[in-house]
Amino acid sequence: MRTVDLITKKRDGGELSKKEIDALIAGYTDGSIPDYQMSAMAMAIFFKGMTPSERADLTMAMVHSGETIDLSGIEGVKVDKHSTGGVGDTTTLVLAPLVASIGVPVAKMSGRGLGHTGGTIDKLESVPGFHVEIDNGQFIDLVNRNGLAVIGQSDKLTPADKKLYGLRDVTGTVNSIPLIASSIMSKKIASGADAIVLDVKTGDGAFMKEMSEAEELAACMVDIGNRVGRRTVAVLSDMSQPLGNAIGNALEVREAIDTLKGVGPDDLTELCLTLGSHMAVLAGVATDKEEARSMLEQSISSGKALDKFKTFLEAQGGDASVADEPEKLPSAKHRFEVPAKQSGYVASIAAENMGVAAMLLGAGRATKESTIDLAVGIVLNKKVGERVEAGQSLATIHANGESVDEAIAKIYDSIRIDDQRVTPSPLIVGEVK
Amino acid sequence: MRTVDLITKKRDGGELSKKEIDALIAGYTDGSIPDYQMSAMAMAIFFKGMTPSERADLTMAMVHSGETIDLSGIEGVKVDKHSTGGVGDTTTLVLAPLVASIGVPVAKMSGRGLGHTGGTIDKLESVPGFHVEIDNGQFIDLVNRNGLAVIGQSDKLTPADKKLYGLRDVTGTVNSIPLIASSIMSKKIASGADAIVLDVKTGDGAFMKEMSEAEELAACMVDIGNRVGRRTVAVLSDMSQPLGNAIGNALEVREAIDTLKGVGPDDLTELCLTLGSHMAVLAGVATDKEEARSMLEQSISSGKALDKFKTFLEAQGGDASVADEPEKLPSAKHRFEVPAKQSGYVASIAAENMGVAAMLLGAGRATKESTIDLAVGIVLNKKVGERVEAGQSLATIHANGESVDEAIAKIYDSIRIDDQRVTPSPLIVGEVK
Repeated sequence: MRTVDLITKKRDGGELSKKEIDALIAGYTDGSIPDYQMSAMAMAIFFKGMTPSERADLTMAMVHSGETIDLSGIEGVKVDKHSTGGVGDTTTLVLAPLVASIGVPVAKMSGRGLGHTGGTIDKLESVPGFHVEIDNGQFIDLVNRNGLAVIGQSDKLTPADKKLYGLRDVTGTVNSIPLIASSIMSKKIASGADAIVLDVKTGDGAFMKEMSEAEELAACMVDIGNRVGRRTVAVLSDMSQPLGNAIGNALEVREAIDTLKGVGPDDLTELCLTLGSHMAVLAGVATDKEEARSMLEQSISSGKALDKFKTFLEAQGGDASVADEPEKLPSAKHRFEVPAKQSGYVASIAAENMGVAAMLLGAGRATKESTIDLAVGIVLNKKVGERVEAGQSLATIHANGESVDEAIAKIYDSIRIDDQRVTPSPLIVGEVK
Repeated sequence: MRTVDLITKKRDGGELSKKEIDALIAGYTDGSIPDYQMSAMAMAIFFKGMTPSERADLTMAMVHSGETIDLSGIEGVKVDKHSTGGVGDTTTLVLAPLVASIGVPVAKMSGRGLGHTGGTIDKLESVPGFHVEIDNGQFIDLVNRNGLAVIGQSDKLTPADKKLYGLRDVTGTVNSIPLIASSIMSKKIASGADAIVLDVKTGDGAFMKEMSEAEELAACMVDIGNRVGRRTVAVLSDMSQPLGNAIGNALEVREAIDTLKGVGPDDLTELCLTLGSHMAVLAGVATDKEEARSMLEQSISSGKALDKFKTFLEAQGGDASVADEPEKLPSAKHRFEVPAKQSGYVASIAAENMGVAAMLLGAGRATKESTIDLAVGIVLNKKVGERVEAGQSLATIHANGESVDEAIAKIYDSIRIDDQRVTPSPLIVGEVK
């Protein structure tokens, strides 16, 4: 089997067999297939797409390119959740303790990652003492004991995906739905998920700006999951404005605590209840979404959800008292209000631009080597559809530097105010299963 | 200018500027742009094509990636000819002395190359003593003195093209018309041509099997030539059966001598007169094709063309007496006839398969390291449309080994005999200028 023949086959619209895809990925992983052949293949896939069975075969070939996590020591159906990225996305911080509190085992691998704010681990590390340096045995013990633990991403999982992602990034082949789908699904499957709930974001702040693309990606991932024996559900959610109000690491932890107490922002609460319901049903702890939702709501109102969060923080060295005294979280030296220049209704908040403003303050990493400031960020005081009077604060900046002119300009640039009231986009825009 | 942005631009159907193409080729030549980006670019070009100005810019960027030959020391308009490859193609051996004999200066760079038979230099080296080890000064002197010289290809010309061709070969991107066209044209221009006559073959034995592809390639090369100030004409010629009768190095030299004497095969003679007429017009030694053709015909009948061949051979150390005593050329030990199994009319001769049969006998190189046997090959005794009786010889095999079963099987496999007379395809099927 010559690699050039596989490239030509794909280029001409043919379907690669499982054997061919396995050979391609094994050869690419061990270096016998060079980058220059793989990039030509990726570009051919960009133009010709992949059939459903090719996508499933590619996903499993990447799963088998490295180690896989064995979660069989944990009782119950392990349901993982993945969000396709957005701005101010605090769902994981809320969801993990929330679903764990009603009996869904959560064995979460998370990363630091690049972005407007840090990854889930960065955010959790704003809780004094919290750490993810636990070994696999401890990880599994903690999940069995508390129903919830978080560990850092192993760099031994899906090496083919890592290598291919790096190559796609510099060869104009990132934007291929089958390649995006198989990349995401391979990581979830290698991390040991039995079932998967996907939160596919769409709109200005999302990777998939167009609804049609988001739908295609969701359908593609659900199809892969179901073909390889992992029940998978996707929720399409709006990211045309930031989710919740906080953008910044400690600020998001604080917002998560509020949400677990039942006093968080409506949109974040709603999305967590929706995703959590699907997770509970897939895990078999509820028979349908309605039952799951009422279990989750009750867990919030009874304080069980917040208690689970505290237990989880403590078990990994964190100071659980932050849940009751959030002022113990890192806090920025300076606050600046961003007053509305005119009265009217908030018509739009460009999510990606707001993320950039937070990054300018130091909340995110521009490169892998950047350090992030856990305390800084932005809290929105108005969301789309709300009335604002001239001079009222649109947003509060939390900064450690004194020069925030650039961030303020970005924020003004991101928020449009109109005379007429604008109805915000619905939060949940679709579901694929 | 990031390379990934150039790839994405092309992928999305944009047009690259001259500056962008220059940077791409300069970076690829010096290694700062890696193979994996160039192969993704080549695949994007495969799918999206190139605009006329992109093709011209790419051609000139490849010309300027290395040395160029300065033929300004040779008087007159230097016209080069290029054939896109085929089976039993003896045109260069005939054309070079033929057009030189009427005053077109021929400063020919040739290669050995891979193929069913050797390259032009291999063929010429079957003349005892002939060699191409002359320096540039001698080369130019010989052209000025005799009107004709042949030198080996410098490996310092168009390094970008060499590197890109090698990459395309293993990444499924050979078959892209703008890339083929700019590759051919860059080599001709770097070799110093003022004007170019292209012989684009079509049919079973050609690289471009389909007439529509051959036409597109011809139009593309003519457009490039004219855009970069090299007058260019393309002739589309039939390669559905081998050209001439001989396939094999010394056998083709013998056939060239016959043709220069006016007793060669009709098709080879006609193609040489057609291409030669265009060369003479572009060089300005004739005012139109009709005048040029009668000059060429007269040069053959008067013996001037053959004399020019002898002068040329002698000047580069060759034994010119082979022109009168062709038995001095290398000759194979054995001859085998391939008799027709049935009576009828030759309906088709699969050119590529016949080439493979000649290669099996040792006439061509399978890899760069192979040595070739100059004496061996095949002479066709019947061409398409001719009557043959059962038992009459279809072809004569010239072999140095005694086991020719495989070649005989290939020959039978290639020649189809029908009850009805088949009209052969016309030889000259089009012209682009």
